[in-house]
Amino acid sequence: MEAVVDAARILVSGAGIDERLLRPLYDLGFQVVPIGREEPLTAQALRRELAGAVAYLHGGDEHVSEEALELADDLKVIAFLGVGYETFVDVAAVRRRGILVTNTPAAAMDAVAEFTVGQIINANRRIPRHLGTLHPHWAGAEELPGELVSKKIGIVGLGRTGTQIAKILRCGFGCRVSYYNRTRREDQEQALGVRFRQLSELAEWSDILVVMVSGNAETAGMIDRRILGRVRPGTILVNTARPSVVDPEALRDALAAGRLGMAVFDGYYQDSSVAKDLLNDFGDRMYVTGHIASHTKQSMERMAGQAVRSVVNVLSGLPDPNVVVR
Amino acid sequence: MEAVVDAARILVSGAGIDERLLRPLYDLGFQVVPIGREEPLTAQALRRELAGAVAYLHGGDEHVSEEALELADDLKVIAFLGVGYETFVDVAAVRRRGILVTNTPAAAMDAVAEFTVGQIINANRRIPRHLGTLHPHWAGAEELPGELVSKKIGIVGLGRTGTQIAKILRCGFGCRVSYYNRTRREDQEQALGVRFRQLSELAEWSDILVVMVSGNAETAGMIDRRILGRVRPGTILVNTARPSVVDPEALRDALAAGRLGMAVFDGYYQDSSVAKDLLNDFGDRMYVTGHIASHTKQSMERMAGQAVRSVVNVLSGLPDPNVVVR
Repeated sequence: MEAVVDAARILVSGAGIDERLLRPLYDLGFQVVPIGREEPLTAQALRRELAGAVAYLHGGDEHVSEEALELADDLKVIAFLGVGYETFVDVAAVRRRGILVTNTPAAAMDAVAEFTVGQIINANRRIPRHLGTLHPHWAGAEELPGELVSKKIGIVGLGRTGTQIAKILRCGFGCRVSYYNRTRREDQEQALGVRFRQLSELAEWSDILVVMVSGNAETAGMIDRRILGRVRPGTILVNTARPSVVDPEALRDALAAGRLGMAVFDGYYQDSSVAKDLLNDFGDRMYVTGHIASHTKQSMERMAGQAVRSVVNVLSGLPDPNVVVR
Repeated sequence: MEAVVDAARILVSGAGIDERLLRPLYDLGFQVVPIGREEPLTAQALRRELAGAVAYLHGGDEHVSEEALELADDLKVIAFLGVGYETFVDVAAVRRRGILVTNTPAAAMDAVAEFTVGQIINANRRIPRHLGTLHPHWAGAEELPGELVSKKIGIVGLGRTGTQIAKILRCGFGCRVSYYNRTRREDQEQALGVRFRQLSELAEWSDILVVMVSGNAETAGMIDRRILGRVRPGTILVNTARPSVVDPEALRDALAAGRLGMAVFDGYYQDSSVAKDLLNDFGDRMYVTGHIASHTKQSMERMAGQAVRSVVNVLSGLPDPNVVVR
């Protein structure tokens, strides 16, 4: 590849993006700069990288704060790989600066739904605890898990991914499924045989409560002390959406009181004072992964493909269907 | 409970059986003796316990060998909790002694199918490796897993449990599923949209090969060097049936050559010379659990309930529908 000097720079963050998917950007003469492959960039480091960049494919776990944007005078577009950009991008700050944000709806539906169902089974059967144990061992009969088919599963958020999770649980496993959604989905109630319940009623009804809503100002702390006060002892909370949807102090208290038997997170609190305590005190009852639910070859290809098209559209002055902040 | 002296003894092995399920045996005046709750009994220990016992509920992981039966002159029935008794009971030895064996068909279908699908997702997405990692980390794009919906899944053995696994994968996840079975199941081909393939062809076709046949003399080493020689590099082998179905040396060679990317076992080789080497050399690519796939509250209740009924039937001289060796 020939050296491109003074070409406009496009940042690409996160691991797992196949170089070949970025080919259109190289072909258009841009300088493509990978950042934050090892770990999320600090605001200071991101600030330096953004100086002079015209576009930014956000495929990592870093937060694009006001401070990080201070030198981003040339930045036209942040193409977020995923749906819930609001956790990762300071929307007010980009809006003030006239930077567009795009996302990649639907690209990761199967990846996230499959991962979530896997973690539901892991939490329900405690499979990770048994890995490497060569003979069955139970303290007693009361320790045996119940079958998924016997469980009542509540889904908070019946968007694309929530609906796919409901479909797998209903049509595959034959579980009883209810849901809460801002707007009722009578089409899915018919198609899948799922029942609408108000959020607090759903919390009380569910043996396993699955959270699948976008992380934003409206959903921050949606699963709070009031909701977790309603769950029955031993309930399993599976949050493969953003951690911010669950209030960390309410989570701590629900785990401490045994109302939550297990909690599953994909992506973890970055700056809560109770985040470390939670893992120290209840680590054996928390399955935490690092925001990987959407990370499959196929979803990454779809996400990167959509993001590249959005960047090209915006930089070319063309309309783009995936603009979510302008 | 009053002391019962000289009452006929019934042995109950394994952890996780609720005492209340054994109530009918107490009520009939038997002395119920739990054995092997901590770890599987040796032949010598089992031999001592079996002296004078009239019945034996086998819910553990111990092997009932010729030697273990030497003093079992009063034993009328071994009620095996599960389907595949032949791995755990020396059939020729019990037959010679006129001891009946019963099992508990269908009791654990959901438990095993749910566990198996959980382990399919675990192996496909490598979830256990990511537990406790708070940020996404990939060595590169080539490390990203593929989505289950894109995978070709081969099921070896389309009995009750294999069929339930196929149903979950087809109707829930929308995977492509083929199967091998001793006898073709055209009913299920129609109902589930699964396709029959000969075993070696299935091995070559599958991205994920799931083994779900009973462990017995006929299936011992069924997945051998010839079959594992046909799989494509990176294939995932999920054996939640008995370990004996997979030849351990062929497994070692397939893992070493990279033809198998991952191997999942529930219950592990007891006496193979390569068993330890396998775990030492390929432990990070093997998810092994201790024969717990069937262990749920519901299946244990069904299994224990059926086994207790069989014991009462046999000791009362009544016919029993679940006699498998007489």
